[in-house]
Amino acid sequence: MSRRLLAESFGTFVLVFAGTGAIVFDAANPGKIGHLGVALTFGLVVLVMAYAVGGVSGAHLNPAVTVGLWLAGRVPGRRVLPFAAAQLAGAFAASGLLWAMFPAHATLGATLPHGPPWHAFVLEVWLTAVLVFVVLAVTAAEPPVRALGGVIVGALIALEALFAGPISGASMNPARSLAPALVSGSVQHLWIYVAAPLLGAAVAVPTCALIQKPGCCKGECA
Amino acid sequence: MSRRLLAESFGTFVLVFAGTGAIVFDAANPGKIGHLGVALTFGLVVLVMAYAVGGVSGAHLNPAVTVGLWLAGRVPGRRVLPFAAAQLAGAFAASGLLWAMFPAHATLGATLPHGPPWHAFVLEVWLTAVLVFVVLAVTAAEPPVRALGGVIVGALIALEALFAGPISGASMNPARSLAPALVSGSVQHLWIYVAAPLLGAAVAVPTCALIQKPGCCKGECA
Amino acid sequence: MSRRLLAESFGTFVLVFAGTGAIVFDAANPGKIGHLGVALTFGLVVLVMAYAVGGVSGAHLNPAVTVGLWLAGRVPGRRVLPFAAAQLAGAFAASGLLWAMFPAHATLGATLPHGPPWHAFVLEVWLTAVLVFVVLAVTAAEPPVRALGGVIVGALIALEALFAGPISGASMNPARSLAPALVSGSVQHLWIYVAAPLLGAAVAVPTCALIQKPGCCKGECA
Amino acid sequence: MSRRLLAESFGTFVLVFAGTGAIVFDAANPGKIGHLGVALTFGLVVLVMAYAVGGVSGAHLNPAVTVGLWLAGRVPGRRVLPFAAAQLAGAFAASGLLWAMFPAHATLGATLPHGPPWHAFVLEVWLTAVLVFVVLAVTAAEPPVRALGGVIVGALIALEALFAGPISGASMNPARSLAPALVSGSVQHLWIYVAAPLLGAAVAVPTCALIQKPGCCKGECA
Repeated sequence: MSRRLLAESFGTFVLVFAGTGAIVFDAANPGKIGHLGVALTFGLVVLVMAYAVGGVSGAHLNPAVTVGLWLAGRVPGRRVLPFAAAQLAGAFAASGLLWAMFPAHATLGATLPHGPPWHAFVLEVWLTAVLVFVVLAVTAAEPPVRALGGVIVGALIALEALFAGPISGASMNPARSLAPALVSGSVQHLWIYVAAPLLGAAVAVPTCALIQKPGCCKGECA
Repeated sequence: MSRRLLAESFGTFVLVFAGTGAIVFDAANPGKIGHLGVALTFGLVVLVMAYAVGGVSGAHLNPAVTVGLWLAGRVPGRRVLPFAAAQLAGAFAASGLLWAMFPAHATLGATLPHGPPWHAFVLEVWLTAVLVFVVLAVTAAEPPVRALGGVIVGALIALEALFAGPISGASMNPARSLAPALVSGSVQHLWIYVAAPLLGAAVAVPTCALIQKPGCCKGECA
Repeated sequence: MSRRLLAESFGTFVLVFAGTGAIVFDAANPGKIGHLGVALTFGLVVLVMAYAVGGVSGAHLNPAVTVGLWLAGRVPGRRVLPFAAAQLAGAFAASGLLWAMFPAHATLGATLPHGPPWHAFVLEVWLTAVLVFVVLAVTAAEPPVRALGGVIVGALIALEALFAGPISGASMNPARSLAPALVSGSVQHLWIYVAAPLLGAAVAVPTCALIQKPGCCKGECA
Repeated sequence: MSRRLLAESFGTFVLVFAGTGAIVFDAANPGKIGHLGVALTFGLVVLVMAYAVGGVSGAHLNPAVTVGLWLAGRVPGRRVLPFAAAQLAGAFAASGLLWAMFPAHATLGATLPHGPPWHAFVLEVWLTAVLVFVVLAVTAAEPPVRALGGVIVGALIALEALFAGPISGASMNPARSLAPALVSGSVQHLWIYVAAPLLGAAVAVPTCALIQKPGCCKGECA
């Protein structure tokens, strides 16, 4: 297994264990972490892992981000499935460890729609489209902005989890949703959290090409 | 439509959907997001969009900022109305999407004074004057500070929303106030949120010239 | 009046209006801003103003910081009183504007000890000593760290307000304490908030000289 | 006593006084600081001290970090015990000062498992392993990322305290746990908070070597 794939597995393991762990541990001590604490955990762990493994693999940590970068021509097609598999392996390790600690927890932090499922679907498309747009823009920016990339993407994850979490769970990441759902058996509406982020990634690429300067979304800024 | 105007529309759409969305989704799940979560959402989304579209349009995302930069001689007059129109288009798209999701929501996150309207008026002038002063100062600073511009302006939006939100709603942005007010029909005191930010922008320009080094507010630091 | 003094007045005006405003507006809408919101307001406003006026005056915004920099040999003695006067003028303008809005508010955000006054005294010395130590260290560091100076000092103000606020009010700044106390007439224990920060500044200078590399605290790093 | 050891003592004193102080002062004013406030205090104080003393000693502030850097070949063996002693001295000074202020406080912020002790053990290994992995990765990264090192490690401490605090207390630092436990006499399960962080540091080193590029974990990036 290459360093790249190990980096994606490890990074996604840390992301899913901290993020869904916040949800599980909050249920064990109601009110201590809270919605704000869960959202900040997700945002800060993405900030940190972006720098901790970014130099090795790019720190996608999310199959939708890998697909978006592939559609934008920034990642070769042969890398998409191995990256997604490595991310899923890390996410399942995280949900497995949480299940070993709290086997009675109903969802292990799986995402579920609150309110009509189409709300969750629309939001997950929107959230992931903005995420992939920002990833494409920031990784093509000038060096000082690129150095802040992890801060910017972490801030985006935090705010998206903050405002959309109460409606859709703010997954934007099939690996983050599949692992706790399958390990806990809480699989209702699971298709939303696979299809919507991938659709969002697909929407982001032409949106980026429309707005950013020519070539920027492909990583070849004029 | 130019990339610049698309960037302003898209950036303002993301800003208004996330920020007023936080207010609308909080009402659907009382207490989850809270005032602190709403303020952080507004600050973080400005931080992120400053970098995501800043390289294309400057990421004003706010007619008062565009007017302030025009008064300071940093943006040509012919660009003011198209920028404002693009920002309004993005804001109306955001409020329209929120209305499609929550048609029964009374205000869609429109800003309203709590307490005497003159409190809100004074605060909106103050908040926008400080915002435009900081934008003028930071965009004229040395490169390492300029690279942190999005972090600094995002931090300012967060703190202004945090402390002044309970009194005035902390709009400082006519596009952010007009769209939810007109889409929801909650138009009382709406003039405050158009006039006060524009007045604040006008106040900021001579204040900046008085305090910053000669030429800096025009972007020509000695 | 020089740009430097105007910058100190304006920066302290913004700091005190936002910070003590958060306390006053929180009382008008109990529970919305909260202790966490007040602490973040103080930290973020220092972060922002450090960059907004730092290039003009150094953004002390606090007589204890000016005194600390003078004792460390970084600011000439003839500048101490004018800087302190400018900071006080800005702070009084802020408290005056808050009083015009909320004349019935008992303290206008003045700092008061909770528990025995010596707790507040010890904490104010500790908080200001750490603040002046960090200001001396960060402003003498290498360029990339120096560029982050406002982020670092803002983070320090936020955390000190967060943990020590419930005991001492976490002033560490005579201007921030004198203005609301004198405008509201809430002057009990006011001496603590003048003497302890100045003592803390005096303690910080030899501590810095003991720990940092030779010359660094004077701004002449070897 | 060398500047290096003084820097470690001072930095750990500030870290433990602010962090465990937040816990003690929160108990004196229930609900003001809260779990979120305590976690942010720990994260922000690490961010600040990383820059304030990092240039002198590297700002380990934690025997587990010193051991991890030694195992990775980044710190000579003869420095481990003096660093740990200096960190412990700073931590004991902090707990002593808190005890002088609140002698009746039961734990002075000592860490205790909530739920089965093996949960706390597993979490402390996990948290410290990720901490040491991130420290090794970030301090070996390219200059712009290295300059953000304090922000990144501070963000990690904040998120780890946020999500794992309710289960294990999120110590990841024997000095931070030993001092309040021994000063207050609250020594139950104390071995967990010494053994688990050291084990986590030992786990981090081969994990880093497996994932990062050759030589990077030793500070010799190719």
